[in-house]
Amino acid sequence: MSEAQTKAGPRAQPVAGEPLARACVVGASGFAGALTAALLWSHPRVSLEAVTARTDAGRRLSDVYPRHRVPLLLEPFDAERVAAAADVAFVSYPHGAAAEVVAALHGLGLRVVDLSADFRLADAARHERWYGPRGAPALAAEAVFGLTELHRSEVAGATLVANPGCYSTAAILALAPLARAGLIADAVVDAKSGVSGAGRGASDRTHFVSVDENVSAYAVEGHRHAPEVDQELAALGADARVTFVPHLLPLDQGLLASCYVTPPHEVAADEVAGLFADAYAGEPFIELAGSPPGVRDVRDTNLCRIHATAAPDGRVLVFAAIDNLWKGAAGQAVQNMNVMLGADETEGLR
Amino acid sequence: MSEAQTKAGPRAQPVAGEPLARACVVGASGFAGALTAALLWSHPRVSLEAVTARTDAGRRLSDVYPRHRVPLLLEPFDAERVAAAADVAFVSYPHGAAAEVVAALHGLGLRVVDLSADFRLADAARHERWYGPRGAPALAAEAVFGLTELHRSEVAGATLVANPGCYSTAAILALAPLARAGLIADAVVDAKSGVSGAGRGASDRTHFVSVDENVSAYAVEGHRHAPEVDQELAALGADARVTFVPHLLPLDQGLLASCYVTPPHEVAADEVAGLFADAYAGEPFIELAGSPPGVRDVRDTNLCRIHATAAPDGRVLVFAAIDNLWKGAAGQAVQNMNVMLGADETEGLR
Amino acid sequence: MSEAQTKAGPRAQPVAGEPLARACVVGASGFAGALTAALLWSHPRVSLEAVTARTDAGRRLSDVYPRHRVPLLLEPFDAERVAAAADVAFVSYPHGAAAEVVAALHGLGLRVVDLSADFRLADAARHERWYGPRGAPALAAEAVFGLTELHRSEVAGATLVANPGCYSTAAILALAPLARAGLIADAVVDAKSGVSGAGRGASDRTHFVSVDENVSAYAVEGHRHAPEVDQELAALGADARVTFVPHLLPLDQGLLASCYVTPPHEVAADEVAGLFADAYAGEPFIELAGSPPGVRDVRDTNLCRIHATAAPDGRVLVFAAIDNLWKGAAGQAVQNMNVMLGADETEGLR
Amino acid sequence: MSEAQTKAGPRAQPVAGEPLARACVVGASGFAGALTAALLWSHPRVSLEAVTARTDAGRRLSDVYPRHRVPLLLEPFDAERVAAAADVAFVSYPHGAAAEVVAALHGLGLRVVDLSADFRLADAARHERWYGPRGAPALAAEAVFGLTELHRSEVAGATLVANPGCYSTAAILALAPLARAGLIADAVVDAKSGVSGAGRGASDRTHFVSVDENVSAYAVEGHRHAPEVDQELAALGADARVTFVPHLLPLDQGLLASCYVTPPHEVAADEVAGLFADAYAGEPFIELAGSPPGVRDVRDTNLCRIHATAAPDGRVLVFAAIDNLWKGAAGQAVQNMNVMLGADETEGLR
Repeated sequence: MSEAQTKAGPRAQPVAGEPLARACVVGASGFAGALTAALLWSHPRVSLEAVTARTDAGRRLSDVYPRHRVPLLLEPFDAERVAAAADVAFVSYPHGAAAEVVAALHGLGLRVVDLSADFRLADAARHERWYGPRGAPALAAEAVFGLTELHRSEVAGATLVANPGCYSTAAILALAPLARAGLIADAVVDAKSGVSGAGRGASDRTHFVSVDENVSAYAVEGHRHAPEVDQELAALGADARVTFVPHLLPLDQGLLASCYVTPPHEVAADEVAGLFADAYAGEPFIELAGSPPGVRDVRDTNLCRIHATAAPDGRVLVFAAIDNLWKGAAGQAVQNMNVMLGADETEGLR
Repeated sequence: MSEAQTKAGPRAQPVAGEPLARACVVGASGFAGALTAALLWSHPRVSLEAVTARTDAGRRLSDVYPRHRVPLLLEPFDAERVAAAADVAFVSYPHGAAAEVVAALHGLGLRVVDLSADFRLADAARHERWYGPRGAPALAAEAVFGLTELHRSEVAGATLVANPGCYSTAAILALAPLARAGLIADAVVDAKSGVSGAGRGASDRTHFVSVDENVSAYAVEGHRHAPEVDQELAALGADARVTFVPHLLPLDQGLLASCYVTPPHEVAADEVAGLFADAYAGEPFIELAGSPPGVRDVRDTNLCRIHATAAPDGRVLVFAAIDNLWKGAAGQAVQNMNVMLGADETEGLR
Repeated sequence: MSEAQTKAGPRAQPVAGEPLARACVVGASGFAGALTAALLWSHPRVSLEAVTARTDAGRRLSDVYPRHRVPLLLEPFDAERVAAAADVAFVSYPHGAAAEVVAALHGLGLRVVDLSADFRLADAARHERWYGPRGAPALAAEAVFGLTELHRSEVAGATLVANPGCYSTAAILALAPLARAGLIADAVVDAKSGVSGAGRGASDRTHFVSVDENVSAYAVEGHRHAPEVDQELAALGADARVTFVPHLLPLDQGLLASCYVTPPHEVAADEVAGLFADAYAGEPFIELAGSPPGVRDVRDTNLCRIHATAAPDGRVLVFAAIDNLWKGAAGQAVQNMNVMLGADETEGLR
Repeated sequence: MSEAQTKAGPRAQPVAGEPLARACVVGASGFAGALTAALLWSHPRVSLEAVTARTDAGRRLSDVYPRHRVPLLLEPFDAERVAAAADVAFVSYPHGAAAEVVAALHGLGLRVVDLSADFRLADAARHERWYGPRGAPALAAEAVFGLTELHRSEVAGATLVANPGCYSTAAILALAPLARAGLIADAVVDAKSGVSGAGRGASDRTHFVSVDENVSAYAVEGHRHAPEVDQELAALGADARVTFVPHLLPLDQGLLASCYVTPPHEVAADEVAGLFADAYAGEPFIELAGSPPGVRDVRDTNLCRIHATAAPDGRVLVFAAIDNLWKGAAGQAVQNMNVMLGADETEGLR
């Protein structure tokens, strides 16, 4: 009895409407790539044509991730083959390794959603400071920072979307309404992530015994998602210091950003709540809550659940919970694809 | 075969030196009270004479908590009986219920370590604001706030020690050296606690299914441990705003306080480290670490493990990890008893 | 900002085909009832008309279970009101409390899926031995034991389905092909369940601190799901002793039945595998795996993933993993409803 | 601030009585070796003179395992250096790699406790079937199987103790009284272990995300601890088939063996209980319980907690819980050393 007998998940049911696209996931053996493939596999108007992997090529994706039930064979990457099979490519490679692949596929005419950090930071110097020299630098001008709620119209016209980091997604969604309103004089973001955010790589750090019954801060000297937050808040007019510190938690999927904002002047809790209600009215994936969200509330969804208020001591508090693999990676990637292709933003994500 | 066959833990081995005290734990069926009993049971120079409980009276403590292996029978509380049996009493009652019991035992001449909040806040108005009117108000003047490292000499002479809250213990130890040095203009404390901190009471909130794979903030409008932090920092000369927000984590024992301090002027990482090294030189239960501590590092110990540094953006960062049931409750209670009775502070705690 | 702003989940999209039914969940505030409501809420051809609860009436279901995103108001139970609103009712009451409600709704002409144990055991004496006298005994003759894969045609014609217990579901699916083939001389079922199987009731037993980092057997003197297994295996011709012992595990959803079967004569691993392949060919919710399944593989699905083999020592080993809340309760309930109403068995379950 | 500021644990307090031994741990960077070092470090009459490691040589043990607080430097292995420094050596190498090191140290006159499997199976053919050819085969005749409770007098006279596997320890302790009484006609052992039992090696299998919210069987075709169980039960007169299947659980330390024994004739629950009471009367590390033990009850102890009974269906049930790193490895190793050296068996283990 072979592993391949794993039941295939429900594939694209024919629905009213035109087929949207043929898709490929490049780097489908990591956590984010695999979930992207799973979401595309069950997307009603997308056909997932190929999945590639560097280390698991030759295995079925459903053998590596039984839970996702995508029965496709993982292939070695071949740009020509991908370009022949697909209209849109999702690249889920480590930072640094993605740029070249993105450039090749983009050059062959595909729309690309890049889940790596290679094109997230628009400013070349800032990119270089955090990651070293950028690969395919010419392409940076084409890239749109894919925090959908902030850049929807640019995403719609883009051929290359730089999908944001998981921490950045939660932090930016938590702070954007305040930034726009000029309410951030200074901010602290204490972020907490489940272990899937650390990726599939096996190490002392991701060993069950290291994480279980534990919690600790890391990257206190500076985390690479911080400049994404700075970039986006600055674009909204907030040039404030934002101290960002991530923590690793004993859970799988889930990310909570606890934001402590010092406003330049006093602001009432109601005013804060109103600001968020206005900012996110009609947003299909933003949920405003009357009390602090738990990451369980958004597990396996593309939602960002936010509670914003002002404390009696004058601090503005915002708590934003997402599933780091969904809204923090694969889910937002598909959301961006939907927007790029003119589809309903929520297709395949409910 | 009865439950009572649980093996008794190692009782007080006769050691060199005088017996120190006969002890009683009042309210030994909660998490903190039970651990206090266990620590006293194996303390080399203390004899644990009685344990009382309100809800589990009549059961053996070792049946309620097999792991602690304290074979004593839980009795209903009787002040006279306690006074006859013991020299020192540990009271581990809910806030509000403790004062009366503490007063009775204190009046009968016992030294008391009170694990509740009833005598932690010296200022009557502050106490009333957070807890309502104080029971046995006359006794407040006798009480010493038992954060041992800050009040060692007062504890030594005290007849009543108010054992600090778990969050306060971590936060105050993290911030005290900065407060003393005039380095706190403003601070955020994002605290993360395991579920044992929520107590033994079964509720939706402590149900496994609520906590598992989850993390969320709570008490964002103000937590009762905050005024303890304010009181102690003010006494050290820091009258700064400290925003404190606790979070519940899917782990049992462990508490991490992540502190984000805005100093009034720039301070170097080395300077910060030096400050902590000086402040805690020779402290048996403070451990300074070169990187952010994990709560696993201190599990089942009375240690507070601290990493303090200055971030490139000028923020001073301090991370303090304790076991909320040890240094945050029972362990510190025994540490205080040792100091009160003139014993080596670490007796029975290693 | 009220709790009610939780985003509603995707409701019944209009699809090709007739509406199937109007449904009601009676007892929607427990784990199984709430998930039943969530599955019906997103079922493409069912309209969920009402949800009732005994303890949380007056709250929105989405406030009690944000994750399910069913915005209906929990109502007190009223048989007439349910009968006016719905064609099919799911009753998720504790054992003993369900019979009367089931009888009332059945008497008013509704089809009923009963998630309790009140009508699972056909034999009155057996029922009485495990549960005491049966309520509404006359109705027992109408009830079909809803292990869909074994009783599909009876379910199709039933007006009352007794949805099996979670343990029974996994154990029976694991053992049925062997029972039918006369291969069970004797069997041990060591079952392991996540905590959601213990229900929403808060107690010492479901407290996070009791379950975390723990595992233990319980009900070793006999568990109420055992007679369901006996009943079904006997109907397949296996009158063997089956020792069943459940264990509680530190996880939320998931149930693994490890079955150790002594066959009456030697049987090869291939033969065992072939037996299962034949027995479950074409079954939409049975997945045969080449290696032992993990409960993660089936989390949040209605699948039962099975690995069956013969060990070198002659024992036949079968491991069956389900999600106790899906295939072990709510998912199978909806599967049964689909069959009762002549719909595709998988509608709303993928 | 260097990592080395981690507080050292309490070293050997001078106590009444002679020093017992100078010890060395060879392979102290794995989970079992590190805990062995920690136990020896705080053993009242042993001085831990050296710790060696293959991969972490040059680091302090307290930097690799802050929690253990053993400040010694990990050295590369050098038999002469170990022999000069120590009287007794603990070897915690992978199976196959240990034999040579054990032989070298034994040849230099040290007493050795070998935590590997290299000398556990007395029969050469059996060893070869499970592990391939044995290294240092001549030494096998010297080795005593160190399940202390069964082989205490042989251990006392031994120069080489083969410390049992974790699963074997629990299973043998659970079954020995029945084996001796001729009560095992057939048995199933369903064992459940925390992840520390899988060792420190980082892999897909020990990745937090693989284990969390999961449980599965493994090694169903035969696990290497099974022949240890067979060997020991046969020596007690039970030549029955014992089917042994291990499972991996989402917890750190803890191992539960659930044993399902078919006796050759009926036996009453009381009789079973009495058998165990007799067998383990006076045993310092065996605890008999009136209900099924949880692994939490024995966490961080050298205890084996057992519940034995007969089910109404005639099966004899035994549940044995240990901490896999203590009684299943390091703790039992120290227990064996105590016995070898004529000390109180519990020294340093309470």
